[in-house]
Amino acid sequence: MTEIKVPATSANLGPGYDTLGLALTLFNNFKIKKRDDQQLKIKVIDKNNEKEIKIADSDNLIAQAYKKYFNFLEAEIIGAEIIEEMNTPLARGLGSSASAIIGGLAAAAVISGKLISENDFIQLAVKLETHPDNVVPALVGGLTINFNCNNNYDYYKIDVDPDINCILLVPDYELKTEKLRQVLPQEVNYTSAISNLSRISLLTAAFINKDYKLLKTAMDDQLHQPYRKKLIKGFDQIISTAYKNGAAGAALSGAGPTILAFAVENEILIAKKMQEIYNSLAIESDSYIVKASNSSLYQSLKEEIVKDV
Amino acid sequence: MTEIKVPATSANLGPGYDTLGLALTLFNNFKIKKRDDQQLKIKVIDKNNEKEIKIADSDNLIAQAYKKYFNFLEAEIIGAEIIEEMNTPLARGLGSSASAIIGGLAAAAVISGKLISENDFIQLAVKLETHPDNVVPALVGGLTINFNCNNNYDYYKIDVDPDINCILLVPDYELKTEKLRQVLPQEVNYTSAISNLSRISLLTAAFINKDYKLLKTAMDDQLHQPYRKKLIKGFDQIISTAYKNGAAGAALSGAGPTILAFAVENEILIAKKMQEIYNSLAIESDSYIVKASNSSLYQSLKEEIVKDV
Repeated sequence: MTEIKVPATSANLGPGYDTLGLALTLFNNFKIKKRDDQQLKIKVIDKNNEKEIKIADSDNLIAQAYKKYFNFLEAEIIGAEIIEEMNTPLARGLGSSASAIIGGLAAAAVISGKLISENDFIQLAVKLETHPDNVVPALVGGLTINFNCNNNYDYYKIDVDPDINCILLVPDYELKTEKLRQVLPQEVNYTSAISNLSRISLLTAAFINKDYKLLKTAMDDQLHQPYRKKLIKGFDQIISTAYKNGAAGAALSGAGPTILAFAVENEILIAKKMQEIYNSLAIESDSYIVKASNSSLYQSLKEEIVKDV
Repeated sequence: MTEIKVPATSANLGPGYDTLGLALTLFNNFKIKKRDDQQLKIKVIDKNNEKEIKIADSDNLIAQAYKKYFNFLEAEIIGAEIIEEMNTPLARGLGSSASAIIGGLAAAAVISGKLISENDFIQLAVKLETHPDNVVPALVGGLTINFNCNNNYDYYKIDVDPDINCILLVPDYELKTEKLRQVLPQEVNYTSAISNLSRISLLTAAFINKDYKLLKTAMDDQLHQPYRKKLIKGFDQIISTAYKNGAAGAALSGAGPTILAFAVENEILIAKKMQEIYNSLAIESDSYIVKASNSSLYQSLKEEIVKDV
């Protein structure tokens, strides 16, 4: 049995719509075992209540990814038993789909014993997920700048300071990314685009130079948050509460509904105060205090488990 | 007599439309002398041919800026003689207007003996120029990320490595920024906005981490260059020639028509090859090889010339 850990991720980070993604120290574990037949048996267990989550075969991203990897290898599928122990809540903007995709691809690498190049791995993952900013940090860790150049997805990784805490406020309801895409306009005006350009440049400088006082301005977004926050009750109040209590920056995680706040200190107080807003609105929620996860799953696959193709 | 040097600047740097500006070691010199009356005598001399450039009073940005500064001080205007020795060509995308504005404001600081805060200085300059990415680097030096937060213009400065050369290819015709603004569409699509978001994030990382291999991807722009390049004969050919000969990155300077290329080495060859394209099109041009100018004019005003208000 081989076990791999795939991090939860926060995509669309601040002004980084479809661009910036952050890997978090909140992991989904995949336990992988070879079978003697060609069957694929997949089980997903919610670690919060130890219950199995039933996923229709057609929706099973782990299986799709697993098969895609063997297709890419042009090899016969080898049977496997994969158990995912999910610690990240589903459909909350924390990259649970990306995690399933990366887990499925990594499982296939482990079972086949053949590791395709990191760039090929990324192309397969993005094809399944359609955007890069969850799958790439899930595979390589850290804060990734994701970009497409000549139809090839690539990234630049920034290692994030362990001093910075990530507070995740996760309400007890799901929002599907498709629905959240529908609320966006067709086009954006120059003013909004320019605002995000300046913010993402600041955010990049803030994380490289560890200059976190920039984050309050840098986390502001004009490209998706103004539209999506209407679907998230209490959003403005939670963000302002985070800042009032000392957060360095705060924004939607992914397409929401999770709200992420960065804090160098007072993270427990900030999380508590943010959660009180949901309490006052009679919305159940969980809060997590995690760090950025800088380690690369791809590197550990390379070093420990499988041979290069 | 006091002499101050204001750098030429390259705004809209790569993907940094209305956001990123770079100060260059190509300076306009302002020679400033107090007069005993309240008159303002301004003379602009083109240093390339030592001829005077006649500017209508209503268009004289040096005079407008000078008066604006005294207005801000709520003080009577003190007369002065200002001679600008221009080394940067006019209306070519190298910040000649910004230079006049900063020169006029700085002259008023010198003559009044009163230096307003850097932030106030910036607000005055942006009000005259309407956008920040030339005036701010002209005042503070370096590569500036310019942003507006709650109707206040502010910046973050990145000191640029002296190893990097900036090649400026300046054709012998003017293009007015207003005309170049008219060719832009009303809105931008998400794909273009996302492309620039990823590029400006990469560009920021490239300059902070001195990782210049990123610049080729990072200098790409989808927000203004595709529209403006139609007004600039030979544009695509010059850019590809720059890359073919080893440039690290290349794009329009400001709104054009100047083209800027970055190079760590072979800068003379690259400049020559770029210029040959204009030669083949029978367009006269000049090329300059300069560096980024990291020194701050505001700091030197503060340290050497005038007292704080």
